[in-house]
Amino acid sequence: PVPAEESAFPATQQLVVLSESLTATQHQILALQEQYYELDKTNRLLVSEVLSLQKMVRAQSQASNELITH
Amino acid sequence: PVPAEESAFPATQQLVVLSESLTATQHQILALQEQYYELDKTNRLLVSEVLSLQKMVRAQSQASNELITH
Amino acid sequence: PVPAEESAFPATQQLVVLSESLTATQHQILALQEQYYELDKTNRLLVSEVLSLQKMVRAQSQASNELITH
Repeated sequence: PVPAEESAFPATQQLVVLSESLTATQHQILALQEQYYELDKTNRLLVSEVLSLQKMVRAQSQASNELITH
Repeated sequence: PVPAEESAFPATQQLVVLSESLTATQHQILALQEQYYELDKTNRLLVSEVLSLQKMVRAQSQASNELITH
Repeated sequence: PVPAEESAFPATQQLVVLSESLTATQHQILALQEQYYELDKTNRLLVSEVLSLQKMVRAQSQASNELITH
């Protein structure tokens, strides 16, 4: 909290601090975006692997049923 | 970096720049939050699909064993 | 937008507002980081579960083929 009677000079100093803090914040967001894209990539791969597993398991289930009934 | 001898006017201008930069930063965070929720939704779906696959595969494995031993 | 003829006092007040807004923004980023780590943990677990499912399904598929051909 900045007292109201503050002169322009400390306000300028606080601007520098704020500006640096905002830059650090933006770097954190960029890092999070990178992490998000990695996670999104893994997720898409997982979706595709789970879909082929479902196809394989259904085909095996059908083959087993035919084996049992014949 | 803002020089100390800066007058109040450029500080005010820099406040506008900082304020706009912070608004842009907050929009990026909102976008990341939306992306996160989408990813979280897909992840929950994947967990549920993997759990049913595990059930199916275990049941098939058990059925195969019974078929072999009988 | 801050008018250019603004005195140092409102600029100081606006600094307080900006500073508080940046702090709130940083808390949002921390929350997103936590959520990201949770999602990453679930994703790694899913990758490992999908890999064992693939092994099981392939083994079952091979066993079925042997059962059919013999």
